[in-house]
Parts: sequence; structure tokens; C-alpha cells
Amino acid sequence: MQLTQFTDFSLRVLIYLVRLPEPGMATIPEIAEYYRISRNHLVKVVNTLANAGLLVTMRGKGGGLRLARPADTITIAEVVRLTEPNMNLVECFDPKASHCRIDRGCFLKAILYEARKDFLAALERHTLADAARMGSGSEGESPAPRGARM
Amino acid sequence: MQLTQFTDFSLRVLIYLVRLPEPGMATIPEIAEYYRISRNHLVKVVNTLANAGLLVTMRGKGGGLRLARPADTITIAEVVRLTEPNMNLVECFDPKASHCRIDRGCFLKAILYEARKDFLAALERHTLADAARMGSGSEGESPAPRGARM
Repeated sequence: MQLTQFTDFSLRVLIYLVRLPEPGMATIPEIAEYYRISRNHLVKVVNTLANAGLLVTMRGKGGGLRLARPADTITIAEVVRLTEPNMNLVECFDPKASHCRIDRGCFLKAILYEARKDFLAALERHTLADAARMGSGSEGESPAPRGARM
Repeated sequence: MQLTQFTDFSLRVLIYLVRLPEPGMATIPEIAEYYRISRNHLVKVVNTLANAGLLVTMRGKGGGLRLARPADTITIAEVVRLTEPNMNLVECFDPKASHCRIDRGCFLKAILYEARKDFLAALERHTLADAARMGSGSEGESPAPRGARM
């Protein structure tokens, strides 16, 4: 059971933005370099997050990305629901794909629905602000303000 | 977020065995035919379940498979933990694979751990006996006793 890399990268981008000093903007190349992941991956991630209204992007000199809403109003569940292609734990969650002969008479699906509900409920209890809190690890430092690195 | 097909098939095999009339044995070809899935897939599934002590297999005439323990003592969580290759929701769950720069200072991992714990807790509350209960769907009928189909 895994979340997609797309979800992983989406959460990393958002956490990066939460940690920027106010008023902060970031760029895709900067975030790609910080996490050492491909810019191409991040372009897709940023487009998805921007289209969903989680990010604001501004073009031109001094432009970049920032969160569209306060970090404590965006739950982890909202992001995961957006970025996971589906939450179909097994084939029979998708009526169009299901070929299981016991589909309609099987309580396993109800049990797995309950587990998925509890999984998402845990993610509803936490926001990007929680996820971006600073830990004690030495690698957990805030990204430097952009000006400070120029 | 999906469980593997291997887990899906493992649960189907186990539910099939729970639904057999007592004293019941089943064969791999019979289960493959019932669910219309490949025998080769099922051989691997059955080996894994047998090695873990969930199934008993008996060779020879009159042989086959049956559950090694009562269905109400085998939780869905026990099966899922056995059959999923890992439960690493994101890269940083595996210290050897993690290259994320904020790994040690990030609370996202703790949030995802909590969600995974709640997911598995739901599956701990239910057994194969619950999953194999009969629903009202017309396709949810018990497999026929082997003798009855000969």
C-alpha cells in the first residue's frame, strides 16, 4: 500500500511553500534543486495544485509560487484526495473494473471502505501547517529566504 | 492508494475457503475457475498463505486446501500485513530508500503513520468470518460443495 510519487512530491512542494518566510514566493527550479527531483515532475505537480486552487502562480520577474490559502486551512486529506489518481483499494471499488464474482455478496468491501474512511479521517485532522512544523532533525531546516541565497 | 492484486487474490482465496461447506477442501483449479483468474497467480498466493500457516494443503486424491485456523481468528489485517510487499506510504517510510531532504525534520511522516495505524486498526477489528458473511447480492452465493458439482 503506497501513495503515488505524485502525491509525495505534491506534499513536499506544499510543505516547502509553507516554510518560506513571509512574504515568500518560490520557483520550480528552486524547489527542484532543494529536493533534488526533476523539474518536469514538479511542473505537473504545480499545475495540478494551481488548477485546484491550492497555489497561486505569478509570472515574470519576481514571480513564482505561493500558497493560495493559509496553511492551517488545507488538510492533508484535501491534498491526497486531489493528487491520488484513485483510492480504489481493490478492483471491486470501481464498479466498471470489477469482475469479481462475489462482488455483490461480499462484506470485504465494506470492511475495506471502513479502513479507508479511517485513513482519510486521520488525514482530515491535520493540515499543511502541522506537517510543516519544524522537527529537531538537522535536515529539517526551513528553506532560506530567496534573497539570502542570491 | 491501492492494495496489490496479490492481496486482493489472497483475500478472495481465503473467503472462498471460509464459505466451503464443512468439512470442505478446495483445489486451485476450482478456485481459479470460480473467480476466472489465472492458476499461476493462485499457486503463488496459496504458497504464501500456506507458508504463513493460514492454509493447510494436502496432496493426492481427495487433497486440496483448507483454512488452517478458524475463520474468526484470522483478521483482515493479518492477511494484508502478510501479502502487501510493504506498507511504505511514501519514500521516507523506508530509511534506506529515503532521499528527502526534510526527512528528519518533517511531521508529515508522523501524520501518515497515524493514518496507516488507523487503517490497519480497522482491519484488525474484522476477521475472515466477517468478510465471508453472505450478502443479499445474487452473485454472493456460497461456492457449491465439490461433491454437488461432480
